[in-house]
Amino acid sequence: MDSILVVGSVALDSVKTPEGESVEALGGSAVYFSLSAKQFVPVGLVGVVGEDFPDAHRKLLSSRGVDLTGLKTAKGKTFRWAGRFSKAMDKAKTLDTQLNVFSTFKPELTKEQREAPVLFLANIDPDLQWDVLAQMKKPRVVACDTMNFWIGLKRPAIRELLSRVDVLFVNEEEAQKLARTTNNIRAALTLSAWGPRVVILKKGEHGALLCAGGQVFPFPAFPVKTVKDPTGAGDTFAGGFMGSLAESGGDLKDVGALKRALATGMVMASFTVSEFSTKRLETLNRSEIERRAGEYRELLSFPAAAVPA
Amino acid sequence: MDSILVVGSVALDSVKTPEGESVEALGGSAVYFSLSAKQFVPVGLVGVVGEDFPDAHRKLLSSRGVDLTGLKTAKGKTFRWAGRFSKAMDKAKTLDTQLNVFSTFKPELTKEQREAPVLFLANIDPDLQWDVLAQMKKPRVVACDTMNFWIGLKRPAIRELLSRVDVLFVNEEEAQKLARTTNNIRAALTLSAWGPRVVILKKGEHGALLCAGGQVFPFPAFPVKTVKDPTGAGDTFAGGFMGSLAESGGDLKDVGALKRALATGMVMASFTVSEFSTKRLETLNRSEIERRAGEYRELLSFPAAAVPA
Repeated sequence: MDSILVVGSVALDSVKTPEGESVEALGGSAVYFSLSAKQFVPVGLVGVVGEDFPDAHRKLLSSRGVDLTGLKTAKGKTFRWAGRFSKAMDKAKTLDTQLNVFSTFKPELTKEQREAPVLFLANIDPDLQWDVLAQMKKPRVVACDTMNFWIGLKRPAIRELLSRVDVLFVNEEEAQKLARTTNNIRAALTLSAWGPRVVILKKGEHGALLCAGGQVFPFPAFPVKTVKDPTGAGDTFAGGFMGSLAESGGDLKDVGALKRALATGMVMASFTVSEFSTKRLETLNRSEIERRAGEYRELLSFPAAAVPA
Repeated sequence: MDSILVVGSVALDSVKTPEGESVEALGGSAVYFSLSAKQFVPVGLVGVVGEDFPDAHRKLLSSRGVDLTGLKTAKGKTFRWAGRFSKAMDKAKTLDTQLNVFSTFKPELTKEQREAPVLFLANIDPDLQWDVLAQMKKPRVVACDTMNFWIGLKRPAIRELLSRVDVLFVNEEEAQKLARTTNNIRAALTLSAWGPRVVILKKGEHGALLCAGGQVFPFPAFPVKTVKDPTGAGDTFAGGFMGSLAESGGDLKDVGALKRALATGMVMASFTVSEFSTKRLETLNRSEIERRAGEYRELLSFPAAAVPA
């Protein structure tokens, strides 16, 4: 069982959705990822908060087993994000972003952190991603999440980064833009050819495509009747995927393990969106996860043809 | 094994897509449905063509085993449709519609046709749908396809029609509009509550939701690397679904059979879109279908967690 080091944001989120709102609630890519992945393997979080970061949040993360050795407290205020989701819950409009201490964040890994076997680079400045990568000894698996931070970078720079990444999480729009195609399957295959052994093209409520070994596996999202807050769904998904994969040994050639990881990501995301902020993740236990994973497998299974040819 | 009676359009389609174009090629909802469903059960087609309908098309349908007793030849020209698909292949823009003989089409069923156990009402004028329904003796299963022809009808009229339908195929936009929600899962459940025992909410390349017995089953589309022409995908899907269901006895309470039917529909649609017009359906055989159905089942299967709770 491999442990995972995650580098990303820790935030106070204010979110409005058609189902309600939350104010300065616990959020950030590294937080959602950690709470999700920690269900499966040890997780160390590298990030920064300001002096105003509520002690309750720190205690919560610790109590859920997230290693906070890498969570720095800097002078100033914690990163804040405010957004509003449309009626269809498929797009968030950013109302306000206050980088605060995050604007000068420069992660310095400890000796132990440098030796982490699995590294997850959440959605942060690409310069920071390179910094972190350069500090790592020899991680067996490097994964990175959605690439909107690369907008403005040239394709050659992106291709260079992708050649260093084993697992790429990317959303539909970004994948199509990068691969210059409107076909998601071709986009996933093109990005795979640029380096990552595994590409996961995320489609929100429509699920995801897993591209591995030259094959494309489509998976639907776990159906959720009432979505309260989609914030963090992608990071939770990535946490579930990487956690499940690391737990089973992290073999990127094991297609069965990759598909199970993808299913685990779907299940974890379905819990997150059912409540605001990290509320559902805070109380979630492994048997609830396994029960829903079983339901998900059952949803997708069907008997062979009654009258085969 | 039940036979299916389908009432719908027979057309000459001129279609442009980013992958090429076809001119006055065989098309129409009843044609795609018949060629698809006929792989599984006997199918009788009720429709109308003009005197200019190529004999080769009629011969093709007959040679594929479609019963053309109900295909009338009327004075005038065959129904024509011309359309162009956008780069993303997700929307067709109608360039031209010539109803021709279809504008005065009034199906009169033979005694034998009235006794068909399964009726499929493709996308035709709702007055014709009622006409046909009124002529039927006592069909065990009545299915109808996408409802854009209902636009302009009042909700009470729609609800009345739905109370007479056992299986409803509906696309995402129409379902959301009818059910007054932007949540596909809620939309499918709402429409189910209006009467149909089975609702299939179609999402194009993102697959479909099957709603039956109060449960929602999400299925992805079979991945197709090169889509040449999406025309007829929905009717082919419905044909595969209804054909598979009828072949296995048509029990609408058998969730396993419904899921297999949905998978069969996905597989059939994936063949259709890989070539223009009905080209791929014309040569398709059952063992190719079963092979791809096996691939589809395999794509979606994954092992249980290595380390359960």
